[in-house]
Amino acid sequence: MNTDPSAAQKKLIADWQTLNRIFIRPEDDVSRQALVKYMEQILFGLHDFLQQHVGITEAVSLKNLAERFKETRIGRHPEKKLADVISQLVNEIAPHAVNVASPYFIGHMTSAIPYFMVHLKTITAALNQNMVKIETSKVVSIVEKQVIAKLHRLIYGMDEAFYREHVQSPSTSLGCFTEDGTLANITALWVARNRLMPPDGDFNGCEVEGLAAGLKAYGIDRCMVLVSRLGHYSLRKAAGVLGIGNRNIVAVDVDRHNRMDLKALAKTMAELQATQGRTRIMALVGIAGTTETGSVDPLPELADICARHDLFFHVDAAWGGPTLMSEKYGHYLRGIEYADSVTIDGHKQLYMPMGCGMVYFKDPHVLDHIAYHARYIARPGSVDLGIKSIAGSREANSLVLASALQIMGSRGYALLIEHGIKTAQAFADAIRQRALFELVSPPQLNILTYRVCPPPFRDRLKSAGPAQRRALNACLNMMNRNIQVLQREAGNSFVSRTTLYENNSEEDPLVVLRAVIMNPMTTSTILNRILDEQEAIYRQNLHPEADP
Amino acid sequence: MNTDPSAAQKKLIADWQTLNRIFIRPEDDVSRQALVKYMEQILFGLHDFLQQHVGITEAVSLKNLAERFKETRIGRHPEKKLADVISQLVNEIAPHAVNVASPYFIGHMTSAIPYFMVHLKTITAALNQNMVKIETSKVVSIVEKQVIAKLHRLIYGMDEAFYREHVQSPSTSLGCFTEDGTLANITALWVARNRLMPPDGDFNGCEVEGLAAGLKAYGIDRCMVLVSRLGHYSLRKAAGVLGIGNRNIVAVDVDRHNRMDLKALAKTMAELQATQGRTRIMALVGIAGTTETGSVDPLPELADICARHDLFFHVDAAWGGPTLMSEKYGHYLRGIEYADSVTIDGHKQLYMPMGCGMVYFKDPHVLDHIAYHARYIARPGSVDLGIKSIAGSREANSLVLASALQIMGSRGYALLIEHGIKTAQAFADAIRQRALFELVSPPQLNILTYRVCPPPFRDRLKSAGPAQRRALNACLNMMNRNIQVLQREAGNSFVSRTTLYENNSEEDPLVVLRAVIMNPMTTSTILNRILDEQEAIYRQNLHPEADP
Repeated sequence: MNTDPSAAQKKLIADWQTLNRIFIRPEDDVSRQALVKYMEQILFGLHDFLQQHVGITEAVSLKNLAERFKETRIGRHPEKKLADVISQLVNEIAPHAVNVASPYFIGHMTSAIPYFMVHLKTITAALNQNMVKIETSKVVSIVEKQVIAKLHRLIYGMDEAFYREHVQSPSTSLGCFTEDGTLANITALWVARNRLMPPDGDFNGCEVEGLAAGLKAYGIDRCMVLVSRLGHYSLRKAAGVLGIGNRNIVAVDVDRHNRMDLKALAKTMAELQATQGRTRIMALVGIAGTTETGSVDPLPELADICARHDLFFHVDAAWGGPTLMSEKYGHYLRGIEYADSVTIDGHKQLYMPMGCGMVYFKDPHVLDHIAYHARYIARPGSVDLGIKSIAGSREANSLVLASALQIMGSRGYALLIEHGIKTAQAFADAIRQRALFELVSPPQLNILTYRVCPPPFRDRLKSAGPAQRRALNACLNMMNRNIQVLQREAGNSFVSRTTLYENNSEEDPLVVLRAVIMNPMTTSTILNRILDEQEAIYRQNLHPEADP
Repeated sequence: MNTDPSAAQKKLIADWQTLNRIFIRPEDDVSRQALVKYMEQILFGLHDFLQQHVGITEAVSLKNLAERFKETRIGRHPEKKLADVISQLVNEIAPHAVNVASPYFIGHMTSAIPYFMVHLKTITAALNQNMVKIETSKVVSIVEKQVIAKLHRLIYGMDEAFYREHVQSPSTSLGCFTEDGTLANITALWVARNRLMPPDGDFNGCEVEGLAAGLKAYGIDRCMVLVSRLGHYSLRKAAGVLGIGNRNIVAVDVDRHNRMDLKALAKTMAELQATQGRTRIMALVGIAGTTETGSVDPLPELADICARHDLFFHVDAAWGGPTLMSEKYGHYLRGIEYADSVTIDGHKQLYMPMGCGMVYFKDPHVLDHIAYHARYIARPGSVDLGIKSIAGSREANSLVLASALQIMGSRGYALLIEHGIKTAQAFADAIRQRALFELVSPPQLNILTYRVCPPPFRDRLKSAGPAQRRALNACLNMMNRNIQVLQREAGNSFVSRTTLYENNSEEDPLVVLRAVIMNPMTTSTILNRILDEQEAIYRQNLHPEADP
């Protein structure tokens, strides 16, 4: 490889013959072997590196890094050949990426994925089908309908006759793939909005005439979505996008297990009922695995309330959905089968590569509320999947999921999920046993929060009045913020942080450390090392000033 | 490989040790070689097949295919090993997928992609970064900001100081990646909507308070988006999603070159002005490469109108955007630099794998209109890209594009685009020279439409009155519909069809055949063969009844 960039550049000139060749995969043995060699470099070059560290963000290094990526002109001629680009990615980019696959990376809902996922994604790229229409996907649209039916059955468990009827029906849809959970939640609330203001007589429906016309036609001043305080921020975004207004995502208080408080919900609903229908509840959202604490709302009770008041019931199971595959813990999600819509993220606990959101609907016709046609594709009556989805062109991530389910079996996924829950419980025990730490939210699924709370603080908190308590917590918040940042920047391990609110009060924020235990390589030994490191950081950096 | 499925199944049991192993890429030589071998199978197994046919949709075979994909239970235990899944995908799925890479597939905006794209996508999958936040992407977010600046510079061509300031600025954004062009258009109109009804005094803005409150605060009854009749259907979808109502996407007539008719636009605007601001234009959309005819609206004139009336100017360059890299044809898009927002699809003329929409904004602050924060990520002031995008979790397609630009150079892309335009022009000449065909819309870029119009029809059309003309066209429409379906189902080549409207009249539909010339392997010889086949289909199937 020529290492003198100017010399290398001189040699690279865009010409038609070279260009034409890159569209035809080389057939001679030498070239074929080169392409395979690159794949080997990608599979193992990256892998070897990724085993070494976690490496998140150090503000300084980030700024230095940014300095290297400031050229904003597109080079006229090729700057690099594929081999050099791959070397650059492996040797210069990857070392500054985040090793989300590290068992020490327990801060977010992104983790190691099985290595076969990379192969499956490669197939998807090589086939390059476009799921928007059958004319650019054919059998892959059929595979997608099947895998959607499989997940629908996991959630709703309707009978065989139901699935026989709908699995490959061109006129009905059991769900759709989206880029992520945010777009899945947007899709669910989009349907809910249109179902609240459907066509009626002269009124052509909210989708056609607009939200203002819809509200007027139905005599509504305002519509709201109720969700617990721990609802994902994508719900606010959805309300903003859909024209509902994000202040109309009403946060209902949570109980001490971080689940929606049913009394608080009843109170909120009573207040709304006093408006005599001028303020309407567009949807009630239950969460199956909150982002921050992994808690599951009381779904059967929420379902019951929705049934009694004829409300659209959405369950955000982006995180917790795959728990349904566990015979041991699936019952945590009991009640999800009553949901009108359910969000699941494939790139979370189905261990898919990024970019696999999904939304499921109980009623196979309800997606008609958001159907769109065009003159050249997606004509009425066609199987084109793009008719009922927020996106148009889409890659075939469904093919990856369909294959992964075959390779893993539901039992395989269940083992991963059960391991995560058990390991999180063991981690909670380890936290309880250490004097320096306080477990803030024990894990129901595989997420927990805790904080550094030195014994002197803990003693004072026990007897403190509200004002003193607030002052102590403010100090602890600063301490935990510092520890999290220092640990992150040391680059050995990564625990995230978030803010919970004591007694649902915005005036009583608790900064907590948050651990998401999904990587099967994350063992109790590793978790204890992470706690050791936090203790060490505390002693080295914060101890002197930490005494209250 | 064991070919008895029941025996194979007996052997596959989900167990913890096996599961754990799939998260650790094997280190011994034999296993490593197996994984590399699979990649070879994917790269060349698929490729060898894809060279063979086009194979779109035969309604009957589609129904038969669907019969094979009706099982809706997720198997409890693994059904297949990776090797078997890959074999199945290569040997059973791929043969029924659509060979979008065939040079005979000229019906849609999906084509062959350079083989290195598959490698780049594989790297992206192996790194599995999540672009929502710096904590799960680090340098890759920096690379994304750089590539966004590169495309922004291609479109807007601001000065070096501008790009120095914004390329890596944490507080400003020059654009964002989306799943596709639809979501890019939704994002652009989302910004336009919020910019029309921003916070003011007691009013907290449309995003917070909702669309109805926004309209009320600004004394607006209705807001509209103006676009030509050839606007992409995603704009209607965007208006539906955003609560504007899709009937408020107002279709402006086109001139005989399929570009927005400025007189018709002036008339529409005058009508709206008569409402004295009660009906407001939220955005005027220009198209740079209509989906159906590839035509480019008069962008400088539209920009001028927007400037005079203070309108948000969006350019949908999902298709045509990359033409800017051609020194020969880039001027077709003159005026795009005045757009407030521009949509470009990477998976179209940047020859990226599926799933790469983008939207660019002239004003680096305008995306603040749609910013969202959360307690655990995307905190104010962070570089987290998820703060200003409709999606949350996203894969790093920007890494693919950044690498592709290095490998291709702008000149490389220009050569592809220029070849497409020249080949489309030659194809238009070939159509003109054949007595059986009529060129309906000559190519400005690389898309054209034509129809079978036998000489007797053509003669009659010349002298026909409106009613007779309509009857003749109805007959021709049926003929062209049949020819397109018969050719598609023969499986050798694929030309799409759409419906254009003579003199902008819904009562005068013209069914046309539509060719998109983007595959560099599509030569004039191949295009002539496609016409030969259409002639043959006409003679064998339609000739007897075809005489008017």
